[in-house]
Amino acid sequence: MEFLVRQSRLFCPFLNKTSPSTLRALSASSPSSNGVSNLQVAARQCPVMGAAMAVQSSRTYATSTKPLQFEQSSPSMANETSIESVHVKAGVFDTSKGICKHGLAVMKAAQAAGGEVSAEKDAQPTKTTSSSPAKRQHNTYNYEDFYHAELTKKHKDKSYRYFNNINRLAKEFPKAHTTSEEERVTVWCSNDYLGMSKNKEVLKSMHNTLEKYGAGAGGTRNIAGHNRHAVELEAALADLHSKEAALVFSSCYVANDATLSTLGSKLPDCVILSDQLNHASMIQGIRHSGARKIVFKHNDLVDLENKLKSLPLETPKIIAFESVYSMCGSIAPIEEICDLADKYGAITFLDEVHAVGMYGPRGAGVAEHLDFEAHASGRPENTIMSRVDIITGTLGKAYGCVGGYIAGSAKLVDTIRSLAPGFIFTTSLPPSVMAGANTAIEYQKMTIKDRAAQQLNTRYVKAKLAELDIPVVPNPSHIVPVLVGDAQTAKIASDMLLDRFNIYVQAINYPTVPVGEERLRVTPTPGHGADLADNLVNALETVWTELGIKRVKDWEAVGGLAGVGVKDAKPVKPIWTDAQLCLTPTTGILADTVVVEKETITAIPIEAAA
Amino acid sequence: MEFLVRQSRLFCPFLNKTSPSTLRALSASSPSSNGVSNLQVAARQCPVMGAAMAVQSSRTYATSTKPLQFEQSSPSMANETSIESVHVKAGVFDTSKGICKHGLAVMKAAQAAGGEVSAEKDAQPTKTTSSSPAKRQHNTYNYEDFYHAELTKKHKDKSYRYFNNINRLAKEFPKAHTTSEEERVTVWCSNDYLGMSKNKEVLKSMHNTLEKYGAGAGGTRNIAGHNRHAVELEAALADLHSKEAALVFSSCYVANDATLSTLGSKLPDCVILSDQLNHASMIQGIRHSGARKIVFKHNDLVDLENKLKSLPLETPKIIAFESVYSMCGSIAPIEEICDLADKYGAITFLDEVHAVGMYGPRGAGVAEHLDFEAHASGRPENTIMSRVDIITGTLGKAYGCVGGYIAGSAKLVDTIRSLAPGFIFTTSLPPSVMAGANTAIEYQKMTIKDRAAQQLNTRYVKAKLAELDIPVVPNPSHIVPVLVGDAQTAKIASDMLLDRFNIYVQAINYPTVPVGEERLRVTPTPGHGADLADNLVNALETVWTELGIKRVKDWEAVGGLAGVGVKDAKPVKPIWTDAQLCLTPTTGILADTVVVEKETITAIPIEAAA
Repeated sequence: MEFLVRQSRLFCPFLNKTSPSTLRALSASSPSSNGVSNLQVAARQCPVMGAAMAVQSSRTYATSTKPLQFEQSSPSMANETSIESVHVKAGVFDTSKGICKHGLAVMKAAQAAGGEVSAEKDAQPTKTTSSSPAKRQHNTYNYEDFYHAELTKKHKDKSYRYFNNINRLAKEFPKAHTTSEEERVTVWCSNDYLGMSKNKEVLKSMHNTLEKYGAGAGGTRNIAGHNRHAVELEAALADLHSKEAALVFSSCYVANDATLSTLGSKLPDCVILSDQLNHASMIQGIRHSGARKIVFKHNDLVDLENKLKSLPLETPKIIAFESVYSMCGSIAPIEEICDLADKYGAITFLDEVHAVGMYGPRGAGVAEHLDFEAHASGRPENTIMSRVDIITGTLGKAYGCVGGYIAGSAKLVDTIRSLAPGFIFTTSLPPSVMAGANTAIEYQKMTIKDRAAQQLNTRYVKAKLAELDIPVVPNPSHIVPVLVGDAQTAKIASDMLLDRFNIYVQAINYPTVPVGEERLRVTPTPGHGADLADNLVNALETVWTELGIKRVKDWEAVGGLAGVGVKDAKPVKPIWTDAQLCLTPTTGILADTVVVEKETITAIPIEAAA
Repeated sequence: MEFLVRQSRLFCPFLNKTSPSTLRALSASSPSSNGVSNLQVAARQCPVMGAAMAVQSSRTYATSTKPLQFEQSSPSMANETSIESVHVKAGVFDTSKGICKHGLAVMKAAQAAGGEVSAEKDAQPTKTTSSSPAKRQHNTYNYEDFYHAELTKKHKDKSYRYFNNINRLAKEFPKAHTTSEEERVTVWCSNDYLGMSKNKEVLKSMHNTLEKYGAGAGGTRNIAGHNRHAVELEAALADLHSKEAALVFSSCYVANDATLSTLGSKLPDCVILSDQLNHASMIQGIRHSGARKIVFKHNDLVDLENKLKSLPLETPKIIAFESVYSMCGSIAPIEEICDLADKYGAITFLDEVHAVGMYGPRGAGVAEHLDFEAHASGRPENTIMSRVDIITGTLGKAYGCVGGYIAGSAKLVDTIRSLAPGFIFTTSLPPSVMAGANTAIEYQKMTIKDRAAQQLNTRYVKAKLAELDIPVVPNPSHIVPVLVGDAQTAKIASDMLLDRFNIYVQAINYPTVPVGEERLRVTPTPGHGADLADNLVNALETVWTELGIKRVKDWEAVGGLAGVGVKDAKPVKPIWTDAQLCLTPTTGILADTVVVEKETITAIPIEAAA
């Protein structure tokens, strides 16, 4: 037994890190667990075992005919052949690389440690079994069956999510290690768009604050959790957006939810006009407000105006929308929406989550970008940004930390501060997080070089994919949505990239995108230079060929989808112009020097920009 | 002018830190701001200016008769006499200490820096003015007036919150500096109950993780934000509560909201039975679920049973409650509620936010504490904790970091993981935060000495206050709710403690507690030994005498309130027994040695426990 555990450890980094006693504890299934051990729960999170179990489980769910060999082996171990055959059949894993041994090792070691592992027992339909404790009365509701049924639905519609264990390494950005500390993958789908999570100034500020002020804030903002870090961060954010005030939340999910639900419920007879593609946090906030909601077609000014027109002028209205839509990369017509808001007496609620740090001379987002020169020369008055009533943003993407915020008039912000339970009744962000975010914001206010490099790398990837006819949803932003068009294929493509090419791009499936528009969402950073980009593009070419995924011409043949292969479509120009990026026509890279806010930056070879 | 700024800086730490150009920028009021400058917004956050403005503003709001002298001085400066007179009249500040100069300095410096400061202009009723941009059409809704009206309501009912700038110092726990880096106050109201935010092992783990894995997680759990820190933290939490699985959220506010709203909306015809004193996060979650909600009287088993009885046995029901209620310190009858849940086919949702880390041999909370010996000797089966279906907790209080979680059956957790937008669509906590929380949990699993010391210090404070007849809401937990009984008095008492005694205890007013039950909520930690406690008690004695606040005998005379001064009330015994604390009858301190999970801890003098 001891020998078996030792041997298994050679293959499995999880086992290598886990003591026999822990393994024993993990592998015991408790009476109420319906035969599922914590080890199985952990195994689901393993990229090897998890995927194998997924394939197995989806088959069981889909067919529910006769027990598979895998299941029959319970409570003893599945044999190597059965597990490998699952891998091979799914076409996801390359057994020649020996990675299946990883999954086997977990199960073997659990057996060696004395635990009962009833492989995939939880994947069986529970109709005939009840997991309720015996002491519960007959005829009462069976909650475990309900959970099982909900999970079954997710498996059936392929929207069940398998998390990949990705440990992004600050000193090897944009690389990460997986469950194994030794293995490296290149992360191509993080929202750490500018690599600020590994920025030296950010880290220094966080270390210093951690040392001096400790780990947590210790209370809500009202009770012991208000401090200089909050004050300074909110001042920096108000300044960033040229607003009177700002307010920081646990996340921008919470900021959007709290702000929209508070305003929508308090403003008398409020109507919220919501872009069709708005983020879940806004949808939830509107739902929670109880206010009347009118959805307008994505970025469609005519539809929006028609809907505004139908409402009494004196009725309070909020137009809720985003600047950059994260899954397709489209950009809202902010100025025109402000015009409509003025015309029909609405206020504008603009989510700049995917834009802050990334657009504008100081990184304030698309609203700032639209008056690039005015803001670059310190004239924020009478700009499009000054017309937006409420701007929300995140500290967790381009700014590399965590948290969210709103910015607006002093009274608006004070009202939300005073009324929103989601702000009032929760612990403040840690001082070190607020300090780090503040440093990131101030850093990005002073230089465009990171976001320029990010845009250049985005252009590079888009251009290379276009050469190969690999379909990218056309958009003017930094998002590279590579269209697959099928949930299972997208998952398999993502797994292939990870297993064969050490490239991590998560598959984006329903409900995050519509069914049939599943995609791989690629997000280049300043650290993703030409070499890495070439690797990605070559890998995608192989995956597209091997899996027979549609190219642009194939989409053209069926009339196009999601903007791909649409006949006579106008080419989409990037919102960062050549001039703003200081591109020279001949070199295609940043010109030698450019003065932005009195700072001279030098040419940035794409690869060196990290 | 330059001289004036220099002189002002002697008094005001804010000015001392702020450059003239920033001051100038802050003091300019933008056209849309209704005359309010960012400097005034900042001034509201100053403990001196903020309070003065509050007094002023509440008068203006309350009377709205003729303009006060303070307002007439706009746009130039208020003179010293007028501001000081406000302070003296309010009875909050000790002008002899010269702290009023702080506020004056801010305004003077702003003037010197060339900004227009229209002091308290925003406190004037806006009926005659419109803050809408001129470009907006006539007859449209005036949003700024709406915000103003909402804030006016808060001022009028005294529920408007003034945040104190409190910077808790890791190396001087439980001291903090205020806006001034040199000033020290003792924090007596933080929820960093065990001082884990400054624990060396926690900090080391956070520094190391920050260095290796960077600042932020870079994505949602599904997209690049799932990592070893999340896996390990969730395993530690599942183990802590002896559950199959756990799931981490941005905060426990989000955990409660997301879990209750998801279950309540998905379980067919679900009814949620909610304790009358439940936290805002649970109230919101229930509201957001759209499920039928039945409130039962606080900790009242008869009322709960009557309400359960009225529902069909087969209807899915959730009993949502807390173990320790944070504002009164009461503790729920968990076992009896589980009995009722079994009898009527409900599941139990137990919020252990104020109990995790603080109760039980391994710090799992009150549910664990109720089977102290069984859990201490590693027998978690068939315990009260094993009967609770869903436990929620925080990483931001006793564990000293930030974040929240749920723990329960594998399928329950997987269902919430798969369905709850508040979990799915938000950035993961930073790796360093998760690593720090994990270290704190594991640390507290291995020793009871911090929570024992915390309990001893709580007993000490409660005993000393009892000697002086200062009213404490009786309870068996670690919370010391000192009853004041009036919103304005509670605020003044809190301000007096801060200004005269350098003691920070936030006043807790409506809506956090019922009107008339306003209190100072004192939370001792292992670091609050006898010397600090004596200081606090002496200060409270002075405050109670000077402000003429009711003593226990006064409450007795009016029939009692909130359990204080109730005739023939049974004495409340602390849930931590003498035996669990290893108290010897003679010494009143921890016995020399006690074996907990094979670890020997030695006697802890109360003061040295920090």
